[in-house]
Amino acid sequence: MKPTIPKGTRDFSSAELAKRNYIFETVKSAFQLFGFEPIETPSFENSATLMGKYGEEGDRLIFKILNSGDYLRKVDDLLYKEKDSVKLTGKISEKALRYDLTVPFARYVVQHQNEIIFPFKRYQIQPVWRADRPQKGRFREFFQCDADVIGSNSLWQEVEFVQLYDKVFTELGLKGAVIKINNRKILSGIAELIGAKDKLIDFTVALDKLDKIGIEGVLKEMRSKEIPEVALSRLMPLFDLKGSNEEQLASLAELLSESEEGSKGIKELSFVIEQVAHLGLLSSSLKLDLTLARGLNYYTGAIFEVEATGVNMGSIGGGGRYDDLTGIFGLKDISGVGISFGLDRIYLVMEELGLFKEIPNPRPQVMFVNFGQQEAQYVMQSMKLLRNKGIRSEMYPSAAKLKKQMNYANSKQIPYVVLVGEEEIKQGAFKLKRMDSGEQNTCNQEELIRLISL
Amino acid sequence: MKPTIPKGTRDFSSAELAKRNYIFETVKSAFQLFGFEPIETPSFENSATLMGKYGEEGDRLIFKILNSGDYLRKVDDLLYKEKDSVKLTGKISEKALRYDLTVPFARYVVQHQNEIIFPFKRYQIQPVWRADRPQKGRFREFFQCDADVIGSNSLWQEVEFVQLYDKVFTELGLKGAVIKINNRKILSGIAELIGAKDKLIDFTVALDKLDKIGIEGVLKEMRSKEIPEVALSRLMPLFDLKGSNEEQLASLAELLSESEEGSKGIKELSFVIEQVAHLGLLSSSLKLDLTLARGLNYYTGAIFEVEATGVNMGSIGGGGRYDDLTGIFGLKDISGVGISFGLDRIYLVMEELGLFKEIPNPRPQVMFVNFGQQEAQYVMQSMKLLRNKGIRSEMYPSAAKLKKQMNYANSKQIPYVVLVGEEEIKQGAFKLKRMDSGEQNTCNQEELIRLISL
Repeated sequence: MKPTIPKGTRDFSSAELAKRNYIFETVKSAFQLFGFEPIETPSFENSATLMGKYGEEGDRLIFKILNSGDYLRKVDDLLYKEKDSVKLTGKISEKALRYDLTVPFARYVVQHQNEIIFPFKRYQIQPVWRADRPQKGRFREFFQCDADVIGSNSLWQEVEFVQLYDKVFTELGLKGAVIKINNRKILSGIAELIGAKDKLIDFTVALDKLDKIGIEGVLKEMRSKEIPEVALSRLMPLFDLKGSNEEQLASLAELLSESEEGSKGIKELSFVIEQVAHLGLLSSSLKLDLTLARGLNYYTGAIFEVEATGVNMGSIGGGGRYDDLTGIFGLKDISGVGISFGLDRIYLVMEELGLFKEIPNPRPQVMFVNFGQQEAQYVMQSMKLLRNKGIRSEMYPSAAKLKKQMNYANSKQIPYVVLVGEEEIKQGAFKLKRMDSGEQNTCNQEELIRLISL
Repeated sequence: MKPTIPKGTRDFSSAELAKRNYIFETVKSAFQLFGFEPIETPSFENSATLMGKYGEEGDRLIFKILNSGDYLRKVDDLLYKEKDSVKLTGKISEKALRYDLTVPFARYVVQHQNEIIFPFKRYQIQPVWRADRPQKGRFREFFQCDADVIGSNSLWQEVEFVQLYDKVFTELGLKGAVIKINNRKILSGIAELIGAKDKLIDFTVALDKLDKIGIEGVLKEMRSKEIPEVALSRLMPLFDLKGSNEEQLASLAELLSESEEGSKGIKELSFVIEQVAHLGLLSSSLKLDLTLARGLNYYTGAIFEVEATGVNMGSIGGGGRYDDLTGIFGLKDISGVGISFGLDRIYLVMEELGLFKEIPNPRPQVMFVNFGQQEAQYVMQSMKLLRNKGIRSEMYPSAAKLKKQMNYANSKQIPYVVLVGEEEIKQGAFKLKRMDSGEQNTCNQEELIRLISL
């Protein structure tokens, strides 16, 4: 029986990695271009660092690591007898796999606060693990790509993140991405306006689903959360906002003029929208979306979400501002703002749109055929010179049949093959074959390097 | 109380990552230059894939992942009552963290044998986890960098791996590395010669320690393993081999002429040494070392180990040939050979030798001072143009005091700072300051790009 891997995990071949790394490298270059610097944190954290930070469901989906050695020895007999999985976990597991990059980042900032220069602009591209039910596009091990600035409440950061999204998606060929923006303070203002301030979270969670379940569905969910009818009726004009971002903001400003928080949100959002318009975007568009809440409760200012056009893939990126990320670890009042890129979805979108055609692949550029020891010796000398010039080269390891060697080069999509027999050795020559056209050239070492480098 | 990370794990700052990534990139480029292609495997495997592959101690040091949900529900009450950690583990944990890259690679080859083109040249650079007691240079999470060829018994591969080591260490500035080479068949031949064939493993494990415990120590350990005195006395001439690799091989060939396996080992080793000498090395030397066994039992042919000169750090790389790696997963008789690089030790050696001075760092090249909204608007336009030219740039997010902003640029070692006030805006100019010399230039946008790019 063939061995397998755990469900929800993946092996990656070199062809897949070439595509994945192309996305990573594009995102990484953009992060660096915008002044972000990388950090990395351990794959597992102390359980106390992670547990309780992602809600009850999150706690359940965190992968826990069993203590080493005789881990049952120290477990109290009475507790053990209960045979209660949840209670036992706390006694036999002290470490857990990273569930996202945000909480470890907060932990990092607090732990290293004396070495860090604030405002701290960091990016982080690492895998995370979730014991979620695997399904299409959802894995138990997947990469997150995050950039955050912590320690400044300047709205220029929001402006820069919009530019950063635009830069990355344009470079990847995903032109016309829609960067949706909202502001948590506006949501608070609306909840205040309709008299549902105490139900802000229920309210935003329901509103977030507008795309999926429509106005009626949202209203139904809000009713089920006991948001009063009178509130819902006051909500209706908001579904009807029309026109440009600026026009919608103007209408909204009027509607929310009574709410201090709502007005502040409008002011913040207006600044970002105005400055982005002033600077211009390469190919994306920025679009006010009042229903955007991202189901997340820790955003306190801007909220972002990105969608690709031309495919139906949902969000390919998201983020926002949070005013108290490090508070959970005792460092209060540090404002942060960040975005992330959804690698796996971006990969699927690019695959669907055929955008991987022209990406660099680190496969060998040339294979030398092996006709036997004497020829191999000659070839190894030549290959050494090619590699010194940075040409990725290999020699077929044994003097197998020519057909087998050519098949190997062909299957690996190696663009050039070099054939050296007795005759070539005598002449100090090389027979170079282009695999796509079949064209052959006899040349010397110098020409060989030149032709392959073309 | 500040949060912490689990012992044996590490956070990496951007300064550390720049150095680590420099090593990774150098190794990766060389792997690609030699025709290797990357794969990646999941961080955790099914326990059945890993358990039993690394010996008893290995099994103990593998990090196990607790099953999700109510993992005790299915545990038999009788077994549970025993409160036996080892027995319970099998029932409550089905997955385990990768312990090395070799076993997952073997699993990968067997699982994907129908998609793979053999000989399969793969490299893999990923973290592994071991529940080992942490100490200087030994961590619970660390990276391995492996390259292997599987599916060919050609000795040219060994020749290429020696060249590959030489290439990487020379590029890293670790000139004069000593690549030690031995052959398991020679060790077998010696064991045969001295009549200790049935104790080959005890024999090689003891011999491997010659550097650390001296001849007397080795003999003592062999005695404790009941290797007879007569065998030990026959061993003595081997400690006295002198001269060049070729001279030593010649003496050895005579000593082992009676042993078929030993003679085969000498023939293999001679080929590799001769071909490497013929091709020449950039800066390393290849050195026959009969004591080299690497304490590993699965090597069947060549054995490699690399040491840096000028520092006392032990091995910074190792590898060898194994004839039956995939046999554990049911795919028999596939020969492989591979090497690995010890990233953490290479890092320490380079640090000690001061070799990180000139490596590229992705930190911002220029910071724009923020004097307020009007100036920031002007600066953002300019920064957009710089970034389009690939210049890593940032603006200080808020209009803080100049001194604070300059300190920020200074601490982050940003080489250039741009100051734009009212006067500069009027003139469409920029004041560019070099942070090292303090030199200032007033220039236009085009000159700004040119000066920073120098």
